[in-house]
Amino acid sequence: MLKINVALGPKSYPIYISKDLLDLKQQLMTIIDQREVAIISSKKIAALHIKKIHKMIGAKRFRLIIVPDGEGAKSLLTFEKIIDQLIDLKIKRDGILIALGGGVIGDLTGFTAACYQRGIDFIQIPTTLLAQVDSSVGGKTGVNHPQAKNMIGAFHQPIAVLTSIGCLDTLPKRQFNAGMAEIIKYGAVQDKRFFNYLLKNIKPIKQLNEPELTYIIKKSCHIKATIVEEDEKEKGKRALLNFGHTFGHAIEYIHGYKGILHGEAVANGMLIAAIISHKLDFLTNKEVIQIREMLASYGLDKFKRRYDVSQLIDAILLDKKNTYNQIRIILLNKIGGAFTYSVNNKKELDFLLKHALQQL
Amino acid sequence: MLKINVALGPKSYPIYISKDLLDLKQQLMTIIDQREVAIISSKKIAALHIKKIHKMIGAKRFRLIIVPDGEGAKSLLTFEKIIDQLIDLKIKRDGILIALGGGVIGDLTGFTAACYQRGIDFIQIPTTLLAQVDSSVGGKTGVNHPQAKNMIGAFHQPIAVLTSIGCLDTLPKRQFNAGMAEIIKYGAVQDKRFFNYLLKNIKPIKQLNEPELTYIIKKSCHIKATIVEEDEKEKGKRALLNFGHTFGHAIEYIHGYKGILHGEAVANGMLIAAIISHKLDFLTNKEVIQIREMLASYGLDKFKRRYDVSQLIDAILLDKKNTYNQIRIILLNKIGGAFTYSVNNKKELDFLLKHALQQL
Repeated sequence: MLKINVALGPKSYPIYISKDLLDLKQQLMTIIDQREVAIISSKKIAALHIKKIHKMIGAKRFRLIIVPDGEGAKSLLTFEKIIDQLIDLKIKRDGILIALGGGVIGDLTGFTAACYQRGIDFIQIPTTLLAQVDSSVGGKTGVNHPQAKNMIGAFHQPIAVLTSIGCLDTLPKRQFNAGMAEIIKYGAVQDKRFFNYLLKNIKPIKQLNEPELTYIIKKSCHIKATIVEEDEKEKGKRALLNFGHTFGHAIEYIHGYKGILHGEAVANGMLIAAIISHKLDFLTNKEVIQIREMLASYGLDKFKRRYDVSQLIDAILLDKKNTYNQIRIILLNKIGGAFTYSVNNKKELDFLLKHALQQL
Repeated sequence: MLKINVALGPKSYPIYISKDLLDLKQQLMTIIDQREVAIISSKKIAALHIKKIHKMIGAKRFRLIIVPDGEGAKSLLTFEKIIDQLIDLKIKRDGILIALGGGVIGDLTGFTAACYQRGIDFIQIPTTLLAQVDSSVGGKTGVNHPQAKNMIGAFHQPIAVLTSIGCLDTLPKRQFNAGMAEIIKYGAVQDKRFFNYLLKNIKPIKQLNEPELTYIIKKSCHIKATIVEEDEKEKGKRALLNFGHTFGHAIEYIHGYKGILHGEAVANGMLIAAIISHKLDFLTNKEVIQIREMLASYGLDKFKRRYDVSQLIDAILLDKKNTYNQIRIILLNKIGGAFTYSVNNKKELDFLLKHALQQL
């Protein structure tokens, strides 16, 4: 069992990484102590993991709230239904919510915890690779608006994250690969050595070898935690973690958040951003090829369809981070080094995107 | 023009108190600078005050979102509709919301600001006495759930509060009196001299004399700010400001939040709490009479109907602050001194409430 501390003053919390969920029983029970809990999960995820949670918490205190599977559950409607059930269950201010699932469940549960009775505690038990290395770390919570992702949300840190490698055994390969997109991102924006480690260990990682998986999850959490510690509310450095996300979010938007996984869209976005970085002479062609090949190892170099440049730009302008006057994208000046680039105008973005889309 | 600083570290903000709203133009424009703004108000309130806001901000930047009048607007539905409009108006992360109205508009706007794009800035322009002395200070925001008040919310501090005494000229007398309930509360829980000042100045206050109104608003904001500075998230001392609120919320709940104003219900609750304080030998009968007479001066000693004790207790148990095992109420041990009393069991509460209701 490994422990990483996310140091955020009074909001600090531990991330535990274990082989099996049951290994974390003592940690879980110490945290929840005598407090009431409600577990939030979906049917599919509960089918895989809920028995272990039941075993750890015990039948008497076990309260489960089931939300629909898929991104559609990240809505105000589901949020409201959870609140109704928390009231029915008489969960009070000192109660604890437990998010059992991937990014959707984590974001939704975190946002519910942020707002229920003006904020109660919650614990993340991430069951997908993406949630383990990204969405469970850093306290960004929220639900989607029909017009834009994560438009409604809050910064609300969990009181603990319980990660188990064993959860990945039942994770569909496509979802595993999507999670790898965010792991590759950490190497690309922040840590060249880690990027090289990932390049050298593609085989054991794809075989779900425990030591390699544990290492890359730990390393990813560590990189993200360090950046979040420095800039919790994304006023500066944290924005670098949006590498690939400006374009990725736009692609997800164009797909109506259906048929494409977040990690897949981010991978597409990273490739676009890498090509643009090269076009602007920040990155060498060799580095672009390295990124492309790494993504290809996980089937992440493919694009679902051809995108129209003006459609992409419209979607980018919807993004929270962008104003009409200022479009900011994250680019690389080397593998392991990211920076914020302010696009001069719409015309420049149009030119850069056209160029990138031709290279795909 | 007076200025009170609410000292909350990086979340500190000023409360400006002026005679006329227009006197605060410079303060408002310095704060909003070049940023986009959206004003949230209701039809009735806008009819009274919006011209001045329009004059201050200017036609070009003026964006108004109208929500329904009344407590019903403090709902997830209205929240969602505001979000829709903010997206339509393309308000970005650096935009500012302005709450123009009473407690409902302030709480609703504050909660929207807390959640829109994971939190944007907002300014309070409170137009009722209650909002000026209570809801606009301290950062509690939220909407109601059909089953309980303020069940969904956040702590989100405004970046400034602009209070104008002139707004009270058009305030219905009943609403003015309801605001007085919270002002009386500050004296009762925290400041005997202020309570005595209120007793001596009932006449000028009722005549809306400017110096006395300015003084009591300033004093109330100051008392509340000092307590919030000490305990923003209501882990301790801030709970004392709930004097009269446990019973008041229960009464509002029984009325379905209709036909009774928050301040009226709180006044009822304060009288119940004062009688209980005396019954438990914390407060003298003379002090109870003083409180009752002060409330009577503003027509706040009347009860809308007879309440059933078990109905009240059920409603109290719904309250965020109470668990089945522990019911906490705020009592007085003197005028100017409040404390938290943990009721031993349901039976004791039943006994105390029965006694209090007989004394009304």
